[in-house]
Amino acid sequence: MDVAIPIFDRFTALDAVGPYEVLCRIPGATVHFLAAEPGPVRTETGALAITADRALSDLPRPDVVVFPGGWGTRAVMEDEPTLDWLRTAHETSRYTTSVCTGALVLAAAGILDGLQATTYWTERETLRQFGATPSTARVVEQGKVITAAGVSSGIDMALTLTARLTSDEVAQAIQLGIEYDPQPPFDTGSPEKAPPELVEGLRALIAAESAA
Amino acid sequence: MDVAIPIFDRFTALDAVGPYEVLCRIPGATVHFLAAEPGPVRTETGALAITADRALSDLPRPDVVVFPGGWGTRAVMEDEPTLDWLRTAHETSRYTTSVCTGALVLAAAGILDGLQATTYWTERETLRQFGATPSTARVVEQGKVITAAGVSSGIDMALTLTARLTSDEVAQAIQLGIEYDPQPPFDTGSPEKAPPELVEGLRALIAAESAA
Repeated sequence: MDVAIPIFDRFTALDAVGPYEVLCRIPGATVHFLAAEPGPVRTETGALAITADRALSDLPRPDVVVFPGGWGTRAVMEDEPTLDWLRTAHETSRYTTSVCTGALVLAAAGILDGLQATTYWTERETLRQFGATPSTARVVEQGKVITAAGVSSGIDMALTLTARLTSDEVAQAIQLGIEYDPQPPFDTGSPEKAPPELVEGLRALIAAESAA
Repeated sequence: MDVAIPIFDRFTALDAVGPYEVLCRIPGATVHFLAAEPGPVRTETGALAITADRALSDLPRPDVVVFPGGWGTRAVMEDEPTLDWLRTAHETSRYTTSVCTGALVLAAAGILDGLQATTYWTERETLRQFGATPSTARVVEQGKVITAAGVSSGIDMALTLTARLTSDEVAQAIQLGIEYDPQPPFDTGSPEKAPPELVEGLRALIAAESAA
């Protein structure tokens, strides 16, 4: 089973690596990091580069697609070769999935039209521009299309996806394998739970960075 | 503030990238991926390479060390140049931390002698060989030494570390920034919670892989 994780300039590392760490443990699965061209691809901070071992065009028909997010999705949403690759992959994929603003790339490719979906919390309303209905759920399953909320949610999504691809037992073993018994020190991980002033402060910071 | 994340052949990606995704968001912090030699470094699956932008020797006195784990730690535990780098870094670090079997490298460098510590759940007893007392806690703070349990626990550890380095408010904002509101589909993420047959099955699998 081939799992394709496309990466691109200014992606968010954990969006991609969270699902990788789960899905690479499925017996018989191979995870491929792909980009327009093979080579190192940098995250939005510039501090981290992951190597794309192959070009997108080398793997046109993966079994599973996991599209990560990040600031770079804005450019990818207008990159026709990537959108074409995604549309073609989606025709025959078992699952087409996204993490964070990766959902906006799926949306731009037309894949979320008429579906419920989620994305990074500040971008939920953007989904409407593409005919999708935003959800506040952390993981949204719509047949073979699964979208996850921001950044760290890809781990939860990938465990759900693993259960669908294999069995609950395999997913449970992988959850133990990555010792995923989360104990965050605070309860501020979603805009529904964080104090309003923290939510608005961070929203303003992101808007300022977005306009820069 | 310089955060050093040493990587090495056959490391576990999420051990490193979980903390990276948290710590890179601290205002004024720079995360550095380091290795014995700069260049791409592969995880244990071979499917993922992260670039070490600098050599360990380029950054002998980081403010924070985060040592990830993985199968490759066995070799690192006997690699004197890396252990020497770690001992030197620890002399002046604000925090010296580990994720998963990264704790065994800290232990081999003598840093955990006399301390409580945690590591990957199958390796807890190994800590005793180095004078440490194993804990079943997910994150163990002992002054400036913080150890975390397996793989995904590095996210929890890094949020705690962020609170210590800055403030609860900054850590809470970063938790929202990475939308860390975990909702794992199962409750099997620790050996204390998973069914005994699942724990023993995975333990046997890991032991077999370890002996291979």
